[in-house]
Amino acid sequence: MQLYALFMHKIPVGVLGASGYAGRELCSLIGRHPGLDLAFATANERSGEQIRLNGRSIQLIRTESAPLDSAALVFSSLPHGHSAAWVKKILDAGAKAVDLSSDLRPGHTEQQIVYGLTECRRAEVAEADVVANPGCYPTAILLALLPLLECGDVASGATISVSAASGTTGAGSTARTDLLFSEVTGDFRAYGVGNNHRHLPEMREFVRGTGSDAELLFTPHLLPVARGILATITVPLRRNIADPLALWKERYSGEPFIEVTESLPALRDVAHRNVVRMTAIKASGISTPTLVVLSAIDNLVKGAAGQALQNANLMLGLDEAEGLPH
Amino acid sequence: MQLYALFMHKIPVGVLGASGYAGRELCSLIGRHPGLDLAFATANERSGEQIRLNGRSIQLIRTESAPLDSAALVFSSLPHGHSAAWVKKILDAGAKAVDLSSDLRPGHTEQQIVYGLTECRRAEVAEADVVANPGCYPTAILLALLPLLECGDVASGATISVSAASGTTGAGSTARTDLLFSEVTGDFRAYGVGNNHRHLPEMREFVRGTGSDAELLFTPHLLPVARGILATITVPLRRNIADPLALWKERYSGEPFIEVTESLPALRDVAHRNVVRMTAIKASGISTPTLVVLSAIDNLVKGAAGQALQNANLMLGLDEAEGLPH
Amino acid sequence: MQLYALFMHKIPVGVLGASGYAGRELCSLIGRHPGLDLAFATANERSGEQIRLNGRSIQLIRTESAPLDSAALVFSSLPHGHSAAWVKKILDAGAKAVDLSSDLRPGHTEQQIVYGLTECRRAEVAEADVVANPGCYPTAILLALLPLLECGDVASGATISVSAASGTTGAGSTARTDLLFSEVTGDFRAYGVGNNHRHLPEMREFVRGTGSDAELLFTPHLLPVARGILATITVPLRRNIADPLALWKERYSGEPFIEVTESLPALRDVAHRNVVRMTAIKASGISTPTLVVLSAIDNLVKGAAGQALQNANLMLGLDEAEGLPH
Amino acid sequence: MQLYALFMHKIPVGVLGASGYAGRELCSLIGRHPGLDLAFATANERSGEQIRLNGRSIQLIRTESAPLDSAALVFSSLPHGHSAAWVKKILDAGAKAVDLSSDLRPGHTEQQIVYGLTECRRAEVAEADVVANPGCYPTAILLALLPLLECGDVASGATISVSAASGTTGAGSTARTDLLFSEVTGDFRAYGVGNNHRHLPEMREFVRGTGSDAELLFTPHLLPVARGILATITVPLRRNIADPLALWKERYSGEPFIEVTESLPALRDVAHRNVVRMTAIKASGISTPTLVVLSAIDNLVKGAAGQALQNANLMLGLDEAEGLPH
Repeated sequence: MQLYALFMHKIPVGVLGASGYAGRELCSLIGRHPGLDLAFATANERSGEQIRLNGRSIQLIRTESAPLDSAALVFSSLPHGHSAAWVKKILDAGAKAVDLSSDLRPGHTEQQIVYGLTECRRAEVAEADVVANPGCYPTAILLALLPLLECGDVASGATISVSAASGTTGAGSTARTDLLFSEVTGDFRAYGVGNNHRHLPEMREFVRGTGSDAELLFTPHLLPVARGILATITVPLRRNIADPLALWKERYSGEPFIEVTESLPALRDVAHRNVVRMTAIKASGISTPTLVVLSAIDNLVKGAAGQALQNANLMLGLDEAEGLPH
Repeated sequence: MQLYALFMHKIPVGVLGASGYAGRELCSLIGRHPGLDLAFATANERSGEQIRLNGRSIQLIRTESAPLDSAALVFSSLPHGHSAAWVKKILDAGAKAVDLSSDLRPGHTEQQIVYGLTECRRAEVAEADVVANPGCYPTAILLALLPLLECGDVASGATISVSAASGTTGAGSTARTDLLFSEVTGDFRAYGVGNNHRHLPEMREFVRGTGSDAELLFTPHLLPVARGILATITVPLRRNIADPLALWKERYSGEPFIEVTESLPALRDVAHRNVVRMTAIKASGISTPTLVVLSAIDNLVKGAAGQALQNANLMLGLDEAEGLPH
Repeated sequence: MQLYALFMHKIPVGVLGASGYAGRELCSLIGRHPGLDLAFATANERSGEQIRLNGRSIQLIRTESAPLDSAALVFSSLPHGHSAAWVKKILDAGAKAVDLSSDLRPGHTEQQIVYGLTECRRAEVAEADVVANPGCYPTAILLALLPLLECGDVASGATISVSAASGTTGAGSTARTDLLFSEVTGDFRAYGVGNNHRHLPEMREFVRGTGSDAELLFTPHLLPVARGILATITVPLRRNIADPLALWKERYSGEPFIEVTESLPALRDVAHRNVVRMTAIKASGISTPTLVVLSAIDNLVKGAAGQALQNANLMLGLDEAEGLPH
Repeated sequence: MQLYALFMHKIPVGVLGASGYAGRELCSLIGRHPGLDLAFATANERSGEQIRLNGRSIQLIRTESAPLDSAALVFSSLPHGHSAAWVKKILDAGAKAVDLSSDLRPGHTEQQIVYGLTECRRAEVAEADVVANPGCYPTAILLALLPLLECGDVASGATISVSAASGTTGAGSTARTDLLFSEVTGDFRAYGVGNNHRHLPEMREFVRGTGSDAELLFTPHLLPVARGILATITVPLRRNIADPLALWKERYSGEPFIEVTESLPALRDVAHRNVVRMTAIKASGISTPTLVVLSAIDNLVKGAAGQALQNANLMLGLDEAEGLPH
């Protein structure tokens, strides 16, 4: 694969499901990537339409017409439940695959698929033929929790309470009356309350995998903004930590896409960027030592298309940061 | 006081600090109240300007010119730190007072002032000469927690984690660059993280007053909406509760301004209305029995001016619900 | 009909098509109207659901089940093309009708139906059995132009250029991808450019009816707000007018729902109110005497449900302003 | 100057007034420009603060401390009225200057300064030591009108009616109560009505310079969006034009930053891009042949910082499109 790069040829990649918000973001990022070439993009309901990528046009085709073997790697942004079968076809055609659906994530399949939370699976991703790209909420939440889970200072049996809010692109591009501008503007509401969100299985598996016995209580909300996720996480600790931020800074030292800050992360800081921005603050005035951890991402970039491309870069032997906005 | 009502005369009331969002909302509500007459409204920086109330004009005057003794009751929406001294002058002038600032709330003063969380202080409010009107966040949070605190089923020593989000009118009407439309649109961020919000003292005092030893961990956020607060509260329980909503329904049975619902409360449901809308849902998949309690209010109505008027109605011997939108 | 009012009974009215934004606004206004009682409300796709009106519940039924003869007057908010036939059934059942669709408006039918632009058809409306309620844009534009058209000072053969912008509720409550929050927020665009909007026929007929030979060039735009219309109208004049605003003030003197102001009207001023707020300003620095006329309405109130109720009040012998927010 | 580029050195440039929205956008664009290096950036009220540019930090200094002679070219984003004097100092220090204020634009000064509407002043800009960068509204409006003005088909003595709407960043970053999120969200209003906007002088001078005797009637509006301008322009013609769009396509053939489209331009299409997107449509149903011309820009990019950089590229002998997002 490295030969492509060596001879300054661009590596051909494909996108299945290019009409949703994540698929469109992915095409747009690929269009600006110096080392990749979009060989094809599929979107059944919009097949025949042209999309413009950095000054060039490409025609959308139907998924069943995708020339899978013309690509070195294919991204699948197909809907949950429909994606896994196409990932198999991609592999059969000799290409690598990054699956943006939940089909192959931990908690959703018995298969042992590499979970592409890049900053803690870098080596596995680089070796993988197929990667399950994490969900948007899990990306924001798990990368923020990771330093704490790894250091073992979460209180035993603790409930980690996660209140998170997402922009509307996280709910997809299908016409729904409850997502009309007239309904969403001026509003704010929770959904999936009581641990009923479909991103919980992959988060639970991941937490368990770190050896922690902490449990998650996750409440997502819908924000009147187009893009972005902010997660507000309260974590009871086994003992006080003198300088909590040092933990994050050390764990993520040198990471190009992790920003550990003294200031409070906000959606504005991360829009259109492939980063997780995070901080941790000690709660005062309560007897249980507790941290409030905050993290912000762009749900379409680091929460979907950007992280998918970050994983693809590793899988294709390219520089991990190539073509990614930060 | 009841004589006013008896003879169908309107009761004269005044407003100190009528230029902020809460003060304006108050004037507007008084203008539509069938039993009250706005005798005067003060706003130092805008004195001389006319405001229109339900088809009638009234001229704003300076606070030091307020004819306090012409009113049966005076609302103070003066800034925190400046209000307590004026409340004293109001009382000295022979009028009753409702203070919308934090000056006289529990945790802010040694004085024993009635805390006007109407639904749990109704009798005291009706007898009071002065009432400290609760903050907007405390109104949403404490009324939602009350049934649970009273029943004693909160786990001993529990941390109650409150993630709440407010519209921008909650941050006041003073020109600040961080509150410009250009900055707030598309954004979402936390503030006062780690239990640093000025509404904590009154909430802590109230929780303690119920006999509970639970502690609050409160994280407020700024929403890109003009009005509304949604509070998302996780409460660890001593034991499982079979039908949690029944607890709320029973406690608030017959309350005109409390809506206990099966559906999830949203800002849209409560805009421009003097209500708290709330629900409670059991968390699944975790070992500690835990409830997620959600409540929504309009921060300017039930969270400020509406509740102030509700208290004033009681203090003046009027029907508690008179002139209030629900 | 007046007997209802005389004996303090409420007059029964019905609503066909209660699930769209205008229909819902209408039900809500009827629920707060002191003299009207909502006898039935229909919505085929939501039949069986309950709607709440001022503390009371009413069940939506299918349109074909509507007991038309139980109402003194029926509002039709059925879609364009489907409404006219139901208006006939309403009249056959012995009730009066207000049609909010475009079916019976001038330019859309050969029938001579009273066009319910209340402020210039008051007497005809009061005598009518059926009234065609004006479109939202025509209400804002025609009432703003009326004083000028009547005085004859518009330049002969002039093009009146109207640039208007509407909130998204004007585009209806049907799920459409181009009306999703994700698409509309941060955007602004024109539509129906080149005189292609379906509200032009009724506006042209009206202008012609005033004896003017002026022609309209109308460009509507979609705003990222939920409700409101602002029309910006440039009118070339036959001659200079010394004090243009005097023209408007005189024409609309005493009108409860017209606000002629020195200040520039804004959407904020008219939200949730049954008013048209307008001003007129002379253009400086150009040789053709020209006025810029601005008007603002709430498209769901004065632009739809509010004006329908205003007309219904007249048709039922009630006070024209009863139950209308201003 | 070209030597810098030849030896792959970056050309040093400076920014005066880097704290406003245009100044910040400029610094951000310079940070990503492959051929430019930000030598200094000034902001009196924020001097001492660090700004981050593409992974590098630079400290803001006071304007009077700016080492003007260290730069090959200096951009001035200082306030109107304060900028001209600094442009003189820049030139005295031996650097070239691009002035983003209105101080040196036509209609504001007697000096003959090149007006940097790049697409019609390319040669003059390339030779200039100082360029007056056009206002945001003039950029959107004049580039859209140019093909029509040049072809001479605008009706003699015509009034060109321009209704335009801008996002809030166009109003600057100073704290003003009328620009608070609480005030702007849900609102839409006109300002400067009757030809009172400060951008008119440069637009009038430009139109006159094309030999046209047409007059402008300009009505700007404030939109509840952060960035973008849409101009809706009605132009009475001398005679019918069979294929109006052909005129625009021919005039702007090969232009990298002009998009002539069949579809209607929208703010979404141009956000964060250095382009003007435009179309022209014939009005139907009126007797005067009339075109509706629409154009959209990002007010901070093509309307300010982007066009300034486009001009600077020409002045510095670089590729005009270098470092510009399109």
